[in-house]
Amino acid sequence: MTVICLLTDFGLRDGYPGVMKGVILGIAPAVQIVDLSHEIPPQDVQAAALTLYRSVRFFPGGTIFVAVVDPGVGTARRAIVAKIGSQYFVGPDNGIFSVLLAEAEDHPQPVWIGELNQPDYWLPVVSRTFHGRDIFAPVAAHLAAGVPVERLSTQIDNPVRLELPEPVKTTAGWIGQVIHIDHFGNLSTNIEARLIDNLETATVVINRVHIEGLVTSFGEQPIGTLVALIDSSGSLAISVVNGSASRRVPASVGDPVELRQHA
Amino acid sequence: MTVICLLTDFGLRDGYPGVMKGVILGIAPAVQIVDLSHEIPPQDVQAAALTLYRSVRFFPGGTIFVAVVDPGVGTARRAIVAKIGSQYFVGPDNGIFSVLLAEAEDHPQPVWIGELNQPDYWLPVVSRTFHGRDIFAPVAAHLAAGVPVERLSTQIDNPVRLELPEPVKTTAGWIGQVIHIDHFGNLSTNIEARLIDNLETATVVINRVHIEGLVTSFGEQPIGTLVALIDSSGSLAISVVNGSASRRVPASVGDPVELRQHA
Amino acid sequence: MTVICLLTDFGLRDGYPGVMKGVILGIAPAVQIVDLSHEIPPQDVQAAALTLYRSVRFFPGGTIFVAVVDPGVGTARRAIVAKIGSQYFVGPDNGIFSVLLAEAEDHPQPVWIGELNQPDYWLPVVSRTFHGRDIFAPVAAHLAAGVPVERLSTQIDNPVRLELPEPVKTTAGWIGQVIHIDHFGNLSTNIEARLIDNLETATVVINRVHIEGLVTSFGEQPIGTLVALIDSSGSLAISVVNGSASRRVPASVGDPVELRQHA
Repeated sequence: MTVICLLTDFGLRDGYPGVMKGVILGIAPAVQIVDLSHEIPPQDVQAAALTLYRSVRFFPGGTIFVAVVDPGVGTARRAIVAKIGSQYFVGPDNGIFSVLLAEAEDHPQPVWIGELNQPDYWLPVVSRTFHGRDIFAPVAAHLAAGVPVERLSTQIDNPVRLELPEPVKTTAGWIGQVIHIDHFGNLSTNIEARLIDNLETATVVINRVHIEGLVTSFGEQPIGTLVALIDSSGSLAISVVNGSASRRVPASVGDPVELRQHA
Repeated sequence: MTVICLLTDFGLRDGYPGVMKGVILGIAPAVQIVDLSHEIPPQDVQAAALTLYRSVRFFPGGTIFVAVVDPGVGTARRAIVAKIGSQYFVGPDNGIFSVLLAEAEDHPQPVWIGELNQPDYWLPVVSRTFHGRDIFAPVAAHLAAGVPVERLSTQIDNPVRLELPEPVKTTAGWIGQVIHIDHFGNLSTNIEARLIDNLETATVVINRVHIEGLVTSFGEQPIGTLVALIDSSGSLAISVVNGSASRRVPASVGDPVELRQHA
Repeated sequence: MTVICLLTDFGLRDGYPGVMKGVILGIAPAVQIVDLSHEIPPQDVQAAALTLYRSVRFFPGGTIFVAVVDPGVGTARRAIVAKIGSQYFVGPDNGIFSVLLAEAEDHPQPVWIGELNQPDYWLPVVSRTFHGRDIFAPVAAHLAAGVPVERLSTQIDNPVRLELPEPVKTTAGWIGQVIHIDHFGNLSTNIEARLIDNLETATVVINRVHIEGLVTSFGEQPIGTLVALIDSSGSLAISVVNGSASRRVPASVGDPVELRQHA
């Protein structure tokens, strides 16, 4: 059974993701539909791109991701399908897949990108404000039903790229940024584990708060301790043991985080 | 695979929708279960009726909708099943399906309504407060497993009707109402596109704010602009481009919205 | 189709439950995955244990529950699998299944508990902070795919027990506690229906508010009335008809509730 995985900023209140599933099941009745998240902050393409980047490797080959954070819906922005390795991606051409595309270039694997331009595979009436329902859901279902990407689209080589902030080298280490604050209040950064020479002797500074040394799990320190650690995405994160770092150290996505590893 | 689609005001925190799914899968193991919404405001039958009305056309024939917004649970209110066209509807007889029934009368299609009165198809013990679990979920699962509506119920012809507010004709156009405010803060009204003679020259007035002309998509105006447009349900709506109209123009469901199309 | 049912405190925003489903479907493509809740309060093992206890009886035999409220992740706390009757339970050894285990002892049924210690059935790389993804999801999927518990684990007989508060007998009746406040604001207690001699003549006292007599359903009293009743879990609860008891009578989990049934 093919997996179709949905990621949107639609919320769960109004029935928008449910309607997309109705459209999908009318075309491909036996797929497995998984919700990745429908709580991406409205119009936050970067947050969606990051959530995809951290998640897709855990899904089986053949999975079709439908990602709809689409502030340009109804304008001239293109609709695209991408095949990266053995997985498929359907959504607006606004950079939502560009972290994955950059990753595919760094660790070479086959990539095919096409502009969706075959209305035969869309709903008969296409609204100007809900392409998730009218274009992306039916295209994903037709993919699952076996229609090849070449029939759904025309190949392009210039998808929109989104530049995510990169950490910067300093004499003492790196300056990165908070790139995600999760449900538990963990502050995840763009400083990946491979940049850290020695977990024990590193110092992490965020908004003037200094944290000496990284722990390897939440449970090493007493409840309530502010700690730095490598999180499950392989990135430097700031947490409070069984508590919320975002409540302890007020921080926003984009705030600088300094890693000092040389005295 | 038959689709069973759930709509409730149960929220996602306490496990109530999950328990309904457990009951369904114990009877009909191979169905596709879809959540339409579990975030209908508590006891708001009208909001549930509207969400159903805007959604069911996107689901395949044969879909079984279970809608449980049920302030009268445990009283003498009836439990019903309806077949409208090729889709099924299971829930309390409190008007939750009446917009769909009115629509079926306007665009004639076969309708069959029955009172659920066959406890053999319910859980063995029926609580007084959770018929979603004890009656509606098992009835939907038995429908999916092939039990005909006539075995589950006795036909009735007087289901409870809920009157939704209708727009009123004025010399200048129409006065309607806000009927839904979505996750993005879009204000959707009961003024349907077919009532609007000329999108470009119409004026929309809500809470003393005037909007001149309708746009055809969010992207036509700069970010932050207050616009009127036809939304994906085919209704007049007030939005802010990449923002929230409900934050810009404080409004509640029921607030009047005026459409002026003749000078 | 085997049912795998997920219960966590992960929230729905960050994609953590979705990633668990990706892992499961990569191993066992044809399972039915059901969300029980992902909105357990962070680190609240007792709330998770209670939600499981009230829900599992409504799921089919063979269901595999994955429960991850896991403040000790990455420490020496064990990971376990339990078979109780015909259902399976996978999660941390922190008492999350202990209400079910106690129930199984009271109403004797076969119980088997093992410590998960076979990394061949985990993801190849195991993080220190997300065992839901790296250990529990793949173990559940391998169970669904037919791997017996004995291959996944080594039997143990000393799982961690969590003591839930029990009601105390008084001369007039019982003193129990609020143990759950749901989405509707209903205050559910640990005083079970079987402890109540006479519903009509009992008095319930919570935070100095007296309620005379229990009703049998919400609809017996006018909208807005504060009532006591037996809820769908078979426990004494305090509700407001079509309203919120937790707004009317400010209360927290743990607050005492008195049942007086003898003058």
